Amino acid sequence: MAVPYAQKMAESQKEISISDFFAKNRQILGFDNPSKAMLVSVKEAVDNSLDACEEAGLLPKIFVKILRTGNKDRFILTVRDNGPGIVKKQIPNVFGRLLYGSRFHAIRQSRGQQGIGISSVVLYSQLTTGKTTTVISKIGEDYPCHKMEILINTKLNRPQIVSSEVVLWEPAHGTEFQCEIVGRYQKNKKQSVLEYLRSTAIVNPHVEIIFEDPDEEVFRFQRVVDKLPEHAKESKPHPHGIELGVLKNMLHYTEARKLTSFLTNEFTRISPRGARGLLDKADIPDKLNPKRLSLDKIQGLYEGMQNMKFMSPPTDCLSPIGDRLIRKGLRKEIDSKFAYTVTRDAKVFRGTPFQIEAGIVYGGELSAGEQVQILRFANRVPLQYQQGGCAMTHAIERINWRPYGLEQRGGKGIPVGPAVILIHIASTNVPFTSESKEAVADVDEIIDEAVRALMDCGRRIKSHINKKKKLKKVSEKYTLIKEILPEIARKSSEIVKKPQLALDEVITKIMNVHVIDTGIHYREVGEGENKQQHTEVTIKVQNYTQKERIFKLLVKVPDTLIQGIYPESYKMKGEVIEWDVGPVSPARSVHLGFTLLGLDKDEYEEVDVFYSKLPGEVIGADPA
Amino acid sequence: MAVPYAQKMAESQKEISISDFFAKNRQILGFDNPSKAMLVSVKEAVDNSLDACEEAGLLPKIFVKILRTGNKDRFILTVRDNGPGIVKKQIPNVFGRLLYGSRFHAIRQSRGQQGIGISSVVLYSQLTTGKTTTVISKIGEDYPCHKMEILINTKLNRPQIVSSEVVLWEPAHGTEFQCEIVGRYQKNKKQSVLEYLRSTAIVNPHVEIIFEDPDEEVFRFQRVVDKLPEHAKESKPHPHGIELGVLKNMLHYTEARKLTSFLTNEFTRISPRGARGLLDKADIPDKLNPKRLSLDKIQGLYEGMQNMKFMSPPTDCLSPIGDRLIRKGLRKEIDSKFAYTVTRDAKVFRGTPFQIEAGIVYGGELSAGEQVQILRFANRVPLQYQQGGCAMTHAIERINWRPYGLEQRGGKGIPVGPAVILIHIASTNVPFTSESKEAVADVDEIIDEAVRALMDCGRRIKSHINKKKKLKKVSEKYTLIKEILPEIARKSSEIVKKPQLALDEVITKIMNVHVIDTGIHYREVGEGENKQQHTEVTIKVQNYTQKERIFKLLVKVPDTLIQGIYPESYKMKGEVIEWDVGPVSPARSVHLGFTLLGLDKDEYEEVDVFYSKLPGEVIGADPA
Repeated sequence: MAVPYAQKMAESQKEISISDFFAKNRQILGFDNPSKAMLVSVKEAVDNSLDACEEAGLLPKIFVKILRTGNKDRFILTVRDNGPGIVKKQIPNVFGRLLYGSRFHAIRQSRGQQGIGISSVVLYSQLTTGKTTTVISKIGEDYPCHKMEILINTKLNRPQIVSSEVVLWEPAHGTEFQCEIVGRYQKNKKQSVLEYLRSTAIVNPHVEIIFEDPDEEVFRFQRVVDKLPEHAKESKPHPHGIELGVLKNMLHYTEARKLTSFLTNEFTRISPRGARGLLDKADIPDKLNPKRLSLDKIQGLYEGMQNMKFMSPPTDCLSPIGDRLIRKGLRKEIDSKFAYTVTRDAKVFRGTPFQIEAGIVYGGELSAGEQVQILRFANRVPLQYQQGGCAMTHAIERINWRPYGLEQRGGKGIPVGPAVILIHIASTNVPFTSESKEAVADVDEIIDEAVRALMDCGRRIKSHINKKKKLKKVSEKYTLIKEILPEIARKSSEIVKKPQLALDEVITKIMNVHVIDTGIHYREVGEGENKQQHTEVTIKVQNYTQKERIFKLLVKVPDTLIQGIYPESYKMKGEVIEWDVGPVSPARSVHLGFTLLGLDKDEYEEVDVFYSKLPGEVIGADPA
Repeated sequence: MAVPYAQKMAESQKEISISDFFAKNRQILGFDNPSKAMLVSVKEAVDNSLDACEEAGLLPKIFVKILRTGNKDRFILTVRDNGPGIVKKQIPNVFGRLLYGSRFHAIRQSRGQQGIGISSVVLYSQLTTGKTTTVISKIGEDYPCHKMEILINTKLNRPQIVSSEVVLWEPAHGTEFQCEIVGRYQKNKKQSVLEYLRSTAIVNPHVEIIFEDPDEEVFRFQRVVDKLPEHAKESKPHPHGIELGVLKNMLHYTEARKLTSFLTNEFTRISPRGARGLLDKADIPDKLNPKRLSLDKIQGLYEGMQNMKFMSPPTDCLSPIGDRLIRKGLRKEIDSKFAYTVTRDAKVFRGTPFQIEAGIVYGGELSAGEQVQILRFANRVPLQYQQGGCAMTHAIERINWRPYGLEQRGGKGIPVGPAVILIHIASTNVPFTSESKEAVADVDEIIDEAVRALMDCGRRIKSHINKKKKLKKVSEKYTLIKEILPEIARKSSEIVKKPQLALDEVITKIMNVHVIDTGIHYREVGEGENKQQHTEVTIKVQNYTQKERIFKLLVKVPDTLIQGIYPESYKMKGEVIEWDVGPVSPARSVHLGFTLLGLDKDEYEEVDVFYSKLPGEVIGADPA
């Protein structure tokens, strides 16, 4: 009897080390080609430094240096931070072992989570140059500073310590990472190290980055805010969308003795009452040992969890970028008067909370004949590659932008027009398509949220374009009436030698409209320490109808100090100033206004005015 | 002294199991959403079956069934093959452990390589339904058939055998895989299970697939070829593009005592003479122990390898799809008269051989106003997702298609026009962007090759379009002359009551051109077993000049039986028939032709005619 082929095959069936796997498939980690490898190496090191600083509550100060070597393809990369440092025993593990880290099991927003990033740079370095990576780390003023040279034993996925010594190092604490890689340095490109650092600095204004490029040019990105972003708290899974298998595993490993305590302690948003309701519905007695639940009962519990209503997940485990920084990020690309941003509420996919923010700028000097530019961010990290493979791009492509005034062949695909779209996902576990963290996977819930945010932006572009058009039309009519009619009246009165007629009423009759005009004026008051930034806002309502008007006017204001609101007959309702205006006689106007403090020039760029109780046509505002 | 934060962090720094990693990041494996999860599950199981059958030299017969359960989101997937089976001991490892497989270290083209695919389906199944996966396998007629139910212990990445028994099973050998998953079944969609199976059957004509869908509709894809494709041989790394770190590792683990034997035995295409030349150039004595080479010496050896010329890698480790099946794949999408394919020579990236094939169809009923359709394949597996993130798509986007007659905004991006492009990469290690194997990474060498293949296709579209235009113009002129001139002559002769003039010479004088017309006629000869497929090809050369012509005519023919070539004054030169034609007098024509046997209807669709020694204008052929 011949030996079955299966027995021959069995000999070659064996375990594959994760390091070997990634050494063979390094493109999965983002090291597809030399320029990308350069960017990824910097990114992993910087993201790591930022995460460590923020976790330890330290304002990050990062120094990045790329040094050319004698070999034109080879560069020495140094990244140094003022973070908490790493204890000696863990240095080799953190840098010399794939799938080793501290943030994997934590439900909290952070840049790195997989325990792969920085060790993948070490792996890439040794693959392409054969050299060791040097790590220097100090955990406190009175602690020794350790310097280690390491390699990764890929067959075992374990660090190999080539040298280890105690050295003198000035900083009180921090970590320095240095490796030699094969790479390419690209200056002045969209997908470059400099661009990555600049974008990172914009959406992380609490960070200081100093970058020395291979030509020894130094770029400084100063800290703008002396405060860390709200510390993203650790959370627990949300019952919605959690997977059956995960629930099963949680039950298996729980230390809770009762199901109610399991449910209330190990999930967010399940109250004791909710837990009892759940168990009642699934017909499971509370006294059952959570560890011994049958698959059927787990299934029942699972279905109950999916069908029951729970509060949205807490958002304090998320750290969105926020309206102001989104505008700033967009304005970096283009100087345009119109920008609109939207921050959605947190939602859940597979039990994981996430939040979508989007922003759009329109017009300005942007070329109308090209595809709109897309800026993608995930957990405050700019994504520079794999745009075509990203759910955030797919959301843009799915929307029919034509009703919103952008060109788009066939009503799908990336639209064409003078616009830049920014989109950010914040999540405790961003579902990237690969370990290189370049694109977000097509998770239905995420695409849905992104589509909603973007459509909101789209509607605002449209109303912006319409408003502009309408105002232009009215202003043409207005010019005609206000300038030409009096001229005709003057000439006629000269000819017939009679006194000139009063025209206001005639004009009013012809116009039959209310015109609301707004103005924004920025100035700096005082000097030096006492300097104040004033943004003065004026609103003028003209009554070009034949009736007296009494109405309400509402203005949405940003979250900043407000001074000198006039007239004083106003009420503040949240972020809205509400006036009772009038009576305003026909052909008369009324002035309103206020001053915003502490905003940068152009930070407040469009006055959102709403009205109620004004019948007929109103130009320059929307009904409340 | 306060405890440094680093010490607090150290407590949570720990190893992450690969199963846990993928359970948390299942989108990396392709399980982004229910419809994709369905497709990926089928794909991984079928790819596995195909690889196993082919490796064992068995013609694959695969049965796939998707069964709806009582729960509308849940399906039971069964995939059964007639492969070699799996020995009992290895069943749990192959299905219940990530990063475990037989093909990872082999340099040979296969669908699976990572040892992740099928166990990822088991993981997904238990994550979403909590259920076990059942595997039945038998390795030979006289061996017992084993049935096992398994789960994966994700904390350890080890299989957990829930039950194991010996059962009766009719087939002589084979494997059946059954799991329950949360999924969505999409009928009649581009990115569907059916579409995947159909495309797979087309480029793998040696495969029989029977598919029963959730509506119990059965689809049969019959075997078309009774022969396995050339068995892809195992190869060794090619010296070009291999990485320094890999070379260092190979030296470390080699059993060779001398560097020359290391180089000649462990690489392909390094001859003993080449090896000595290499060592001389790098100034390394052959007697040095390969294991003890310093990094400097390794670096020198590495640089020498990159700068020296070597033969291209052997292609017998690759299995391209081939011209005929590419046309068939394209024709499935669209019935068009024009198709062109190109197969590039094998090239190397990072020491890994790869080969690009491309094909294009143009015209037919395709809509002219939409983006061209793209069909991507890797190692004969259709890629249905992540088109936007794939190097093959990026190659298409990088080309300026406008000179080739397709529309394209700004000369980049996916072109618009009535065309379908197919592109295939065959490689011993396709560099996918992620474990889900949906897109190829942007490796420079691959994009370059793809661009070359596609530009070749582009040039052919252009010459096709030009030829069509030119023929149309000439035929209009010809119609004018051939029909209207005689009519005028007739009328004139009637009026003047004189005999009609002979017009041939006049026409010849006006035309002053050689016109080559071709015809293809398909018919079936005989009945039943004796049925033969005949494709008759005719070529007519008309001499519309005033000189007698003696010239050469060449026709490229496909690789099939050829009969009845006339006139008999021909020579076969490889795939080309060459005739010495003439003398052909002015206003006279000559006929040539042949019959191709065994091709399907429309399989031969355009006669490629070339000429030499014909001065002046020639319509319908290109100069040789």
